Amino acid sequence: MLEPDKLSLNIPDTTKPRVVIVGGGFGGINLAKKLNGERFQVVMFDRQNYHGFWPLLYQVATAGLEPDAIAEPLRKMFGSDEYQDFHFRLVKVTGVNPAIKTVSTIIGDLPYDYLVMATGTKSNYFGNEQIKKYSFPLKQIPHALNLRSQLLQAFEQANMTNDPEIRQSLLNIVIVGGGPTGVELAGALAEMRKHVLPDDYSGLDFSKMNIYLVEGMDRVLPPMSPEASAKTYKYLMELGVVVKLNTLVEAYDGETAVLKGGEQIKTNTLVWAAGVSGALIDGLPPEAVERGRVLVDEYNQVIGLPGVFALGDIALMKTEKYPKGHPMVAQPAIQQGQLLAKNLKRMLRNERLEPFEYNDKGSLAIIGRNRAVADLPKNIHLSGFLAWATWLFVHVMALVGFRNKLVVLSNWVYKFFTYESGTRLIIRPFVRKGDRVKQEFLNKYNSD
Amino acid sequence: MLEPDKLSLNIPDTTKPRVVIVGGGFGGINLAKKLNGERFQVVMFDRQNYHGFWPLLYQVATAGLEPDAIAEPLRKMFGSDEYQDFHFRLVKVTGVNPAIKTVSTIIGDLPYDYLVMATGTKSNYFGNEQIKKYSFPLKQIPHALNLRSQLLQAFEQANMTNDPEIRQSLLNIVIVGGGPTGVELAGALAEMRKHVLPDDYSGLDFSKMNIYLVEGMDRVLPPMSPEASAKTYKYLMELGVVVKLNTLVEAYDGETAVLKGGEQIKTNTLVWAAGVSGALIDGLPPEAVERGRVLVDEYNQVIGLPGVFALGDIALMKTEKYPKGHPMVAQPAIQQGQLLAKNLKRMLRNERLEPFEYNDKGSLAIIGRNRAVADLPKNIHLSGFLAWATWLFVHVMALVGFRNKLVVLSNWVYKFFTYESGTRLIIRPFVRKGDRVKQEFLNKYNSD
Repeated sequence: MLEPDKLSLNIPDTTKPRVVIVGGGFGGINLAKKLNGERFQVVMFDRQNYHGFWPLLYQVATAGLEPDAIAEPLRKMFGSDEYQDFHFRLVKVTGVNPAIKTVSTIIGDLPYDYLVMATGTKSNYFGNEQIKKYSFPLKQIPHALNLRSQLLQAFEQANMTNDPEIRQSLLNIVIVGGGPTGVELAGALAEMRKHVLPDDYSGLDFSKMNIYLVEGMDRVLPPMSPEASAKTYKYLMELGVVVKLNTLVEAYDGETAVLKGGEQIKTNTLVWAAGVSGALIDGLPPEAVERGRVLVDEYNQVIGLPGVFALGDIALMKTEKYPKGHPMVAQPAIQQGQLLAKNLKRMLRNERLEPFEYNDKGSLAIIGRNRAVADLPKNIHLSGFLAWATWLFVHVMALVGFRNKLVVLSNWVYKFFTYESGTRLIIRPFVRKGDRVKQEFLNKYNSD
Repeated sequence: MLEPDKLSLNIPDTTKPRVVIVGGGFGGINLAKKLNGERFQVVMFDRQNYHGFWPLLYQVATAGLEPDAIAEPLRKMFGSDEYQDFHFRLVKVTGVNPAIKTVSTIIGDLPYDYLVMATGTKSNYFGNEQIKKYSFPLKQIPHALNLRSQLLQAFEQANMTNDPEIRQSLLNIVIVGGGPTGVELAGALAEMRKHVLPDDYSGLDFSKMNIYLVEGMDRVLPPMSPEASAKTYKYLMELGVVVKLNTLVEAYDGETAVLKGGEQIKTNTLVWAAGVSGALIDGLPPEAVERGRVLVDEYNQVIGLPGVFALGDIALMKTEKYPKGHPMVAQPAIQQGQLLAKNLKRMLRNERLEPFEYNDKGSLAIIGRNRAVADLPKNIHLSGFLAWATWLFVHVMALVGFRNKLVVLSNWVYKFFTYESGTRLIIRPFVRKGDRVKQEFLNKYNSD
């Protein structure tokens, strides 16, 4: 890895309008795909070289899928065969200067004609540095691999202690946040506890393994319908997940989670899925930012900044139907990316722009085998096998690459019939941020 | 991760003879499988929780396969449904005390009746600490993932520099060691350069990418037949690999590889596949160790140590046909493991033991698509498509799990027709041992 001062962006000069897209998530890739043609030069910046299908990230954490099944290299997606004048750069964007229409990265600045922020979100610890230090986030592939290693090592170690208190602490898993990530992770762990782990660890009593799901609101899956929440709660009960509603986690020091009200849970593994905030870029005027998101008009243009746009989770578009903004899921990002491509072309032709209208295709969550919930348009609520099959169909179809679909589908079919998956690999020495184990021990443990 | 003093091995007491196997490689798993039954308690120690099919490791490094395709969790392999009184522990073994028949681990000691060392090999840098610090080994899955990230990041950065010298250094890859690992890695990289990379990086001129293969002996693949070596050399030439025979690498500081004779190659990526030595366990008498391997008799029993055995790469069994020991590949380990299981049962019955006789099934190497070489018994030498198909068949059949076979085969078929694979993911911030980039920069680059 070279120092930044030896690198430069090397974007070719062009007479075409330059669209700079920050972020290769759902919004960014859908915009870039539709922009392809002769009219624009498209530059995409991301700190990762892949697009990830994050709704399945919990599957990587629970050893159901490997990373390549849910991620696609951006360079493969925008290969030069098909995409002209498209330029990907693996860099971190540090700021924007709207006054001179320049975006800054750690290796240099680039002038833009149109800037599109599609940076998504990052974990929000609400200022609790201790929780940030000791908890496991689940936002990126390395997070999922870390959590997987942590869970498997906890079971290995629970098998190697005679101290019942230490063993219980290793077998307690606390998931903070009852949104889709927390619910789906809790469900997948409960299925593992039932079908996979007892055979792997015959010396361990998995009736002692506790999966806690802690949610601050009065129901799980707050973004979904009350019907879906109630059904999900029932499913979680059936699977033996301990759900604590109206409950906040106030502290976690790597050993003990302290809940509001004083209850304490000893655990070596606390997963933080309780909140996100927009991954903001420096340089935006304060009036363009609200509650960690970027205020945009109905054309996804940032308030007061012509030529600057925001898409997806980072964008806060207040409409009559969605006064607090659209749900922070894939569909609004996809639809906004596709519409913005059309509108940028319209701008070139001086045509009237089309305002965004969200086409809500519904939402889905999976809790376990044959246990899923779906809110579909026209107030249709599905659950059970039908929702499960819908979930499977929608997610497999949504995966980007042809190969990924095959991998995920064959994994799923295989798992459905055998309750088995083959990826329970601890593939790296695990060092947790703030781990209290001395480095010398790790060196000794992992040498060569 | 807990401190070792809080853990203990927790192996149940038994009246049966206890066989302790150190290492879950080819020798260890074949022994354990055949020992299953009512006669022995079997304890397996490994620092990884999986068995790896290492002949395909270079495919993980070149983004052809994901780790789960070449590795199988040991607990899955020896699930409690089928294997009785089998106990896996994820620990590092630190020594053996043959006088009191005890093996030591970082979390405690365990008495054994039979101890089997099946620990394989580790990279041998021949005492060159600088090369050890700056080079990339390729012995384990984390090594392969590191190398993959390094290669992909080097291409990303080559795309982001205007300095021709820096760019060339990023596009030079030096592989030290012309054995199977070095040859197969060089071939796979050459195929990537031809079929995958130009489409991914349209701004880079891949005719400038150099793949050097440096070998100290006078031919590549020295363990194979001269016919196979000659054919392999021709294939490497056709693929544009720069092969340097009779050449040693004397120094590498992370920037410049210095060859014996003085030639220098600037490179950011030097892969060390030049030598291995046995992963020895402390406590063996010096007369039992020769050139880094453990001297064993024809029953794989360590010279002078009744009840202690060594299998596979770590074992040096000198026979008339193999005066320098058997080839350090999978087959001798597999066959020795299977035979030792039989002989341990014979010992219990006081029957005469069967001496080991190696059944050489031949050896194979793959250089590229339709380019492979095979030395088969009875002096049959194959090359080209026939050897390639044989290679594919043998390797897919050898993979341990049912699912892995499917994954590898479908990957291969897909790659064969499309020259494409989907795993070019840089899945973690890469920090090289001894990297000269400051930690603050890495923190800045990877924050959040």
